[in-house]
Amino acid sequence: MKLFRNIGAIVGVREGAGEALRGSDMNLLPVMEDAWMTVDGETIHAYGPMSSCPAEADEVVDVNGGWIFPSFCDSHTHIVFAGSREREFVDKINGLSYAEIAARGGGILNSADRLHNYSEDQLFDEAVPRLCAIIASGTGAVEIKSGYGLTLEDEIKILRVIARIKREFPLEVRSTFLGAHAVGRAYEGRQDDYVEHVCRDMLPAVAAEGLADYVDVFCEQGFFTVGQTEKIFNEAARYGIAPRLHANQLHCSGGVQVGVANGAASVDHLENIGQTEIDLLATSPTIATVLPGASFFLNMCHAPAPALIKAGAAVAIASDYNPGTSPSGDMRFMSSLGCIQLRMTPEQALNASTLNGAAAMGLASRYGSITSGKVASFFITRPLPSAAYLLYSYTEPLIERIYLRGREV
Amino acid sequence: MKLFRNIGAIVGVREGAGEALRGSDMNLLPVMEDAWMTVDGETIHAYGPMSSCPAEADEVVDVNGGWIFPSFCDSHTHIVFAGSREREFVDKINGLSYAEIAARGGGILNSADRLHNYSEDQLFDEAVPRLCAIIASGTGAVEIKSGYGLTLEDEIKILRVIARIKREFPLEVRSTFLGAHAVGRAYEGRQDDYVEHVCRDMLPAVAAEGLADYVDVFCEQGFFTVGQTEKIFNEAARYGIAPRLHANQLHCSGGVQVGVANGAASVDHLENIGQTEIDLLATSPTIATVLPGASFFLNMCHAPAPALIKAGAAVAIASDYNPGTSPSGDMRFMSSLGCIQLRMTPEQALNASTLNGAAAMGLASRYGSITSGKVASFFITRPLPSAAYLLYSYTEPLIERIYLRGREV
Repeated sequence: MKLFRNIGAIVGVREGAGEALRGSDMNLLPVMEDAWMTVDGETIHAYGPMSSCPAEADEVVDVNGGWIFPSFCDSHTHIVFAGSREREFVDKINGLSYAEIAARGGGILNSADRLHNYSEDQLFDEAVPRLCAIIASGTGAVEIKSGYGLTLEDEIKILRVIARIKREFPLEVRSTFLGAHAVGRAYEGRQDDYVEHVCRDMLPAVAAEGLADYVDVFCEQGFFTVGQTEKIFNEAARYGIAPRLHANQLHCSGGVQVGVANGAASVDHLENIGQTEIDLLATSPTIATVLPGASFFLNMCHAPAPALIKAGAAVAIASDYNPGTSPSGDMRFMSSLGCIQLRMTPEQALNASTLNGAAAMGLASRYGSITSGKVASFFITRPLPSAAYLLYSYTEPLIERIYLRGREV
Repeated sequence: MKLFRNIGAIVGVREGAGEALRGSDMNLLPVMEDAWMTVDGETIHAYGPMSSCPAEADEVVDVNGGWIFPSFCDSHTHIVFAGSREREFVDKINGLSYAEIAARGGGILNSADRLHNYSEDQLFDEAVPRLCAIIASGTGAVEIKSGYGLTLEDEIKILRVIARIKREFPLEVRSTFLGAHAVGRAYEGRQDDYVEHVCRDMLPAVAAEGLADYVDVFCEQGFFTVGQTEKIFNEAARYGIAPRLHANQLHCSGGVQVGVANGAASVDHLENIGQTEIDLLATSPTIATVLPGASFFLNMCHAPAPALIKAGAAVAIASDYNPGTSPSGDMRFMSSLGCIQLRMTPEQALNASTLNGAAAMGLASRYGSITSGKVASFFITRPLPSAAYLLYSYTEPLIERIYLRGREV
């Protein structure tokens, strides 16, 4: 048993927290000041006020007034990719649109071309510093998507790399098959045939190797239709692979509806939704995941997170870490953006990036809060004036120690 | 003599660069690939391609393909302050305006009240981690303003702390007297009397101790008028203290004009300027300093940096690090914001945050580029695919080693 004592405050202490927070429940972030906490192996064992601190333990860590936060849970990333895309960053500054960049051979197909020439080892090696960086910035659970393969072989390659990350890294990993991220080059102009290929060839192969916890589709004008999305979800369901969805990033075109109707764990983006979609998410178990890093980096409109929360939805924040539209996986910064740009309160933003992020990955019973019995993945900051300070002082190096599954990393 | 060899690239190599870059000159950022560089004491001695690398040196540092950038030059900060203001951050999220927060006793006066109760040592001690953080993020020269005192004693207190920072830290410091940041509480409703106090009492005392390199005024509706600004500048000129200015942050009310007319080193903010102000700055030696961190954190409109550059102005980027409206001094992130939000190219943004920032502090002959004879203040990143990557991958930990005045810190 490991004892942490003289904790300035534990943030996100929630006994028995096993599901997403909805609506006004997101406004509260429980904080226990002047506390102790014990960790038994990989698991949070107990905690309480310093006045009741246990006298003995196998190992004692004096936190010296530092604050403990549950690890961030990043439920939407594309962290395994080949090369960077800063040239497109400059193209965007020079005024080219997302569509124009794609038309110039950039965007997702550009990433797929590069990935095709990478070995699994190269892909893994390039992902390592990114994974180390997100761990260092406080992430303890992460979802990683394929979708830069777009051929059977390359989708399997990227999913195998994700499987290797699952085995070799101490953070929790959920893998998502996103064959329908864009239409592969060999199927240009034959979108339906590509969807057929995803369903008939890719999904069975992915399922046979057990490589995907989820299936995802980029449901968007110019990418995949609601009907194609439904077809892929139905096929995935035959293999027991649960759906999640890229919805309403660029247009309001039925993504939220098809996600909710198919019981998606989460519908992600939501920059372009109206009251109909807000009302639907308010009464559905599907998590509404906003991706502030993408709207920030693309200088586009933001998802209406406060309206979603006010209506009663469960809102999560994720990073969308990818080389084209969100080249950062720093969940603390994403939470700051949730406040600065999406106008969420710090409590809402931290709930969204911890417990609700965990829920969006089906991990709410094990991650996302400081709860007896949950996985001991958390970070310790230097003493803070408040939890809000972590997001307010958004570039200050505050995180001092990181524990994943009970071990310091 | 210290030799750095196997440098992947040196960014911002400019022989004889001693003044600000204007207009289209800002589009070019010279890069020397596969290079060596020598440092003699505190000074950059020479550099060249690896094919001509010197064989010997007193000390050899193998950079292993890492990239060298000149230190950032942050020409506008309020880094010496008492306490944080994240409560106002939450007020802002809840929709209160800058003016409303000031009316509730927040804003600058709130910071002044706290500072009044701090000793010099306390103020210094609280500034230390902020200074360490900006050094770690690549800053090598910084301007620091007073302006949270607003009484004679408290303005002197903060300026003495800045003087101590000058003496004790390895980064270059320029100090600015900003008594006219807001009207001190004792002068509420008597703005002209406060200006008189600044001129008659504060300026002579500041000058007598040699505490200020510059004088600054918050020229803005509700703060100080153009006439009051001019009065303070005229008085400061008697003591040989050069002017700089907070201009056009909230309204277009003559700030740029009074700054240029009085030969200000820099006019800062510029979120609310029109073609008249752009044309004026295009033909004036006054630097146009944009503060992307403030417009980002306040979620307000951005200064029209591309239009200024197109017109021929010299644009600098600074952080505006302060507890109320820009709680970050990370100049790399400010440069990223220059690209992402102000739509500057990476070359323009890096020139703005190095050489032009130096020029805005009167330091262009010694800082802001890798130039023989300039101060050896620079940082080394891991190998990068391009200079733009530093700003594109905006949260990735890339800086590996930092040298200030020739010594590793």
